Amino acid sequence: MAPNSAFAKLAELGKKLEALEHAQSMLSVDEAVMMPSGGGEKRADAMSMLAGMYHEMATAPEVGDWLAAAAEEPLDDMQQAAIREQARVYTNMTCLSADFVRRQVSARVRSEQLWRELRAKDDWAGFLPAFEGIVAIAREEAGLRSAALGLEPYDAMMEQYDPGNRAADIAPVFARLKTFLKDFIPAVVDRQAAERAKRPVKPLNAPFPIDKQKALGLAVMEAIGFDFEHGRLDVSHHPFCGGVPTDVRMTTRYTTGDFLSSLMGIIHETGHGLYEQGLPKEWSNFAIGRARGMSIHESQSLFMEKQIGRSAEFWEWAMPLVGQHLGPAAIAGWDIEDMLTHVHEVRTGLIRVDADEATYPLHVILRFEIEKGLIDGSIAPKDVPGEWNARMSEYLGLTTLDNYKDGPMQDVHWPSGAFGYFPSYTLGAMIAAQLWASLEKDHPSARDDVRAGRFVEINNWRRDKIWSQASRYSTPELLVKATGEKLNAQYFEDHLKRRYLA
Amino acid sequence: MAPNSAFAKLAELGKKLEALEHAQSMLSVDEAVMMPSGGGEKRADAMSMLAGMYHEMATAPEVGDWLAAAAEEPLDDMQQAAIREQARVYTNMTCLSADFVRRQVSARVRSEQLWRELRAKDDWAGFLPAFEGIVAIAREEAGLRSAALGLEPYDAMMEQYDPGNRAADIAPVFARLKTFLKDFIPAVVDRQAAERAKRPVKPLNAPFPIDKQKALGLAVMEAIGFDFEHGRLDVSHHPFCGGVPTDVRMTTRYTTGDFLSSLMGIIHETGHGLYEQGLPKEWSNFAIGRARGMSIHESQSLFMEKQIGRSAEFWEWAMPLVGQHLGPAAIAGWDIEDMLTHVHEVRTGLIRVDADEATYPLHVILRFEIEKGLIDGSIAPKDVPGEWNARMSEYLGLTTLDNYKDGPMQDVHWPSGAFGYFPSYTLGAMIAAQLWASLEKDHPSARDDVRAGRFVEINNWRRDKIWSQASRYSTPELLVKATGEKLNAQYFEDHLKRRYLA
Repeated sequence: MAPNSAFAKLAELGKKLEALEHAQSMLSVDEAVMMPSGGGEKRADAMSMLAGMYHEMATAPEVGDWLAAAAEEPLDDMQQAAIREQARVYTNMTCLSADFVRRQVSARVRSEQLWRELRAKDDWAGFLPAFEGIVAIAREEAGLRSAALGLEPYDAMMEQYDPGNRAADIAPVFARLKTFLKDFIPAVVDRQAAERAKRPVKPLNAPFPIDKQKALGLAVMEAIGFDFEHGRLDVSHHPFCGGVPTDVRMTTRYTTGDFLSSLMGIIHETGHGLYEQGLPKEWSNFAIGRARGMSIHESQSLFMEKQIGRSAEFWEWAMPLVGQHLGPAAIAGWDIEDMLTHVHEVRTGLIRVDADEATYPLHVILRFEIEKGLIDGSIAPKDVPGEWNARMSEYLGLTTLDNYKDGPMQDVHWPSGAFGYFPSYTLGAMIAAQLWASLEKDHPSARDDVRAGRFVEINNWRRDKIWSQASRYSTPELLVKATGEKLNAQYFEDHLKRRYLA
Repeated sequence: MAPNSAFAKLAELGKKLEALEHAQSMLSVDEAVMMPSGGGEKRADAMSMLAGMYHEMATAPEVGDWLAAAAEEPLDDMQQAAIREQARVYTNMTCLSADFVRRQVSARVRSEQLWRELRAKDDWAGFLPAFEGIVAIAREEAGLRSAALGLEPYDAMMEQYDPGNRAADIAPVFARLKTFLKDFIPAVVDRQAAERAKRPVKPLNAPFPIDKQKALGLAVMEAIGFDFEHGRLDVSHHPFCGGVPTDVRMTTRYTTGDFLSSLMGIIHETGHGLYEQGLPKEWSNFAIGRARGMSIHESQSLFMEKQIGRSAEFWEWAMPLVGQHLGPAAIAGWDIEDMLTHVHEVRTGLIRVDADEATYPLHVILRFEIEKGLIDGSIAPKDVPGEWNARMSEYLGLTTLDNYKDGPMQDVHWPSGAFGYFPSYTLGAMIAAQLWASLEKDHPSARDDVRAGRFVEINNWRRDKIWSQASRYSTPELLVKATGEKLNAQYFEDHLKRRYLA
């Protein structure tokens, strides 16, 4: 590579951007884990200035020139792919005018603040004007993105989170899954009720001291492959996985009354952490070296939590570990079935973030259908509560009539202007199931590995198929490369049937 | 202020630089307190890129133009002072060519690495060529700084750490102090030996559990005025005070065998922390809003540790607190004299960082004399061991013949190219004593306040005289403004005589 080539200039710029991102990531972690409250104002100022510097450097006009010039330079396949991905990111970052972004930020801040205040009061009517404003801005954004990318407006919004995701591909898969779940969920709920009548649920023998829960969590993280030379576990109010690939900062929160909630959260975040730790180091200063997007990231955490962490095989290995760290009294006299009763409970409810893996997709599909309608104009903001209630009644048999805070006002996504994000959650869950099925085809002994607490082969397969691929392919392409076929709801349905109705 | 004025442009640039400094400070804290070892390489890359961005932005040619233009704008007194201080910093940052800085960095890195390796082997002969190189570079630097600032070469080096400090002012003060200490120290050592013969030293009743030591340290910090809304205490291998004024991050380290070492360290660092927390918030994006320099910063920590934290009055208040937090057995049966025997011990030794407040200045004066000679060429690098041993013998009655690692190879300062820094330590100690004397003149009840654990009046005086003044004045000017006279060794000598020979 010639030192004055456009590619070399992009690589050098990438190092600066990587350093700024490093600072932003670590400052965010510090804010959640360490910062005293009085440090918040200056921290916000610093974060905003760093974000401004980042945006200015990443979207400078000469970067566009370098990208065009690099495309003409003699590059190998990987370098060409790196330039294509970098150009895609550049287009996504530059397709909104500075003036539009200013209007958007101001509308979002106002709408999110209002939402926080009015959600607590269940005041939809008071929130509606701001919501109409934010939907209008989102439609304008979708139009601008659509024009720049040559995509349908809603697809152009999803493109920010999952490159290559198209509503035309997703809608039929979601429709099929919806049909399946509408019958599946009542069957599971009935069956679990019958089982509970025969065999009462054993309560957790709380309290569980926090230092012991922490030791248990660390032992599980270590066993499933988290590299503590390049990461750590701390405590924050909202658990997350942050930091940088060489220094992954995970958090959890503990309650002494229940060790399962923290432990399952740790397993989930470890899934994110393993993905970050497995990214190719040599491309860290290019977009192509980053994690692929929200669906794939979520697939990695759900693979760890749902496919593995809630499986019977996992608990064959993990139950002795629980006794070892929390003391024999913690789950004295439990067998696997007692534990599975806890981690497999299916229950319909109004709140997405509290949902189990069987009901969760219906929350997402409902939002996908409504937000697609909001962006294409077929649903008006004022009609959202009605649309919501109709779907909630049909999909989960629950009503949100006159209950806005547990209906369309429950999530921060729309009030903060994030349209096109919701599908990623359920796509991630489906991709996780499809990856597991594919892994089991390649490694028929995968379940035995889990039973024995052996995760090396499983992680090697994931590293090969997903982690090391970073952003080389679009989301759908990556799935095809990894599993040999495009998104197929069958795998997720089979997973659910095996776990809940076998 | 016109929005397009040069002053406004400098203020805006200052916000960006402040954000970068914020990131650099917090990343340094995180590195010492939280970072797993595997994160170090990328962290170093990120820090180096951020430092490069900072330097590029701070030294851009247009900044010089803005500074010149701002000097002609209609500004109030404080704004004019801000521009003068900013111009001073700009000159100090730009007076070395990029080419020279590259050569310097490379020589420093090589010399420091070699020093780490050869110090352990006590190999002066092996280190000498690198040391000659680093002295040659330092002399070149001093020449460049001298030309840009119109100062004597050694003064130009000190100017980086303490604006306004001049060897011609310091040398006679140091000479007087040296003469005093050469007689004072043997007198104190003899007296303490006689006292110990009459009254044996009571040993500390270890172990002291770390969580209890931490609670004691936090209680002392809180009482002496540290604001935990804007700061916190953590653990690191080398204790420091870092972070930013709105979020001061202090560290300590604990050993279960001795609570005094951590506690005195905490009191020392709290002195730095109070200074940072007391800086004027409204000037945080200008150099004039920062702490004045190394001498004044050290004066604030030594004021807290030596003037207050090792005084009999302080222990009248603190001894019950020790019992309360560490348990009554910790210092059972002790009276004040037993505690003072521990915190007032004077003992000659070869190592500066282990020295007490009476012997420490002689370590510094020795270095000041030698490094001044190295910069003006009157001492050759090869002659340093001889010069060192001659002074060590004369000042402290100790030899470093054939003992380089405890002689001129003991400190990182010279191997890393920092010449002109050493005087700050002892200037800080003298300034602390002069400030205490001045405070006592204004508040005759200051010692009673300490006895009662009341620090509000004392801190208000310090805030008024030092903290709120930030970098408005040069170091010597600030001292005159605060105490009514220039640096006077009498106050430090009086302090020592009162404490050790009264």
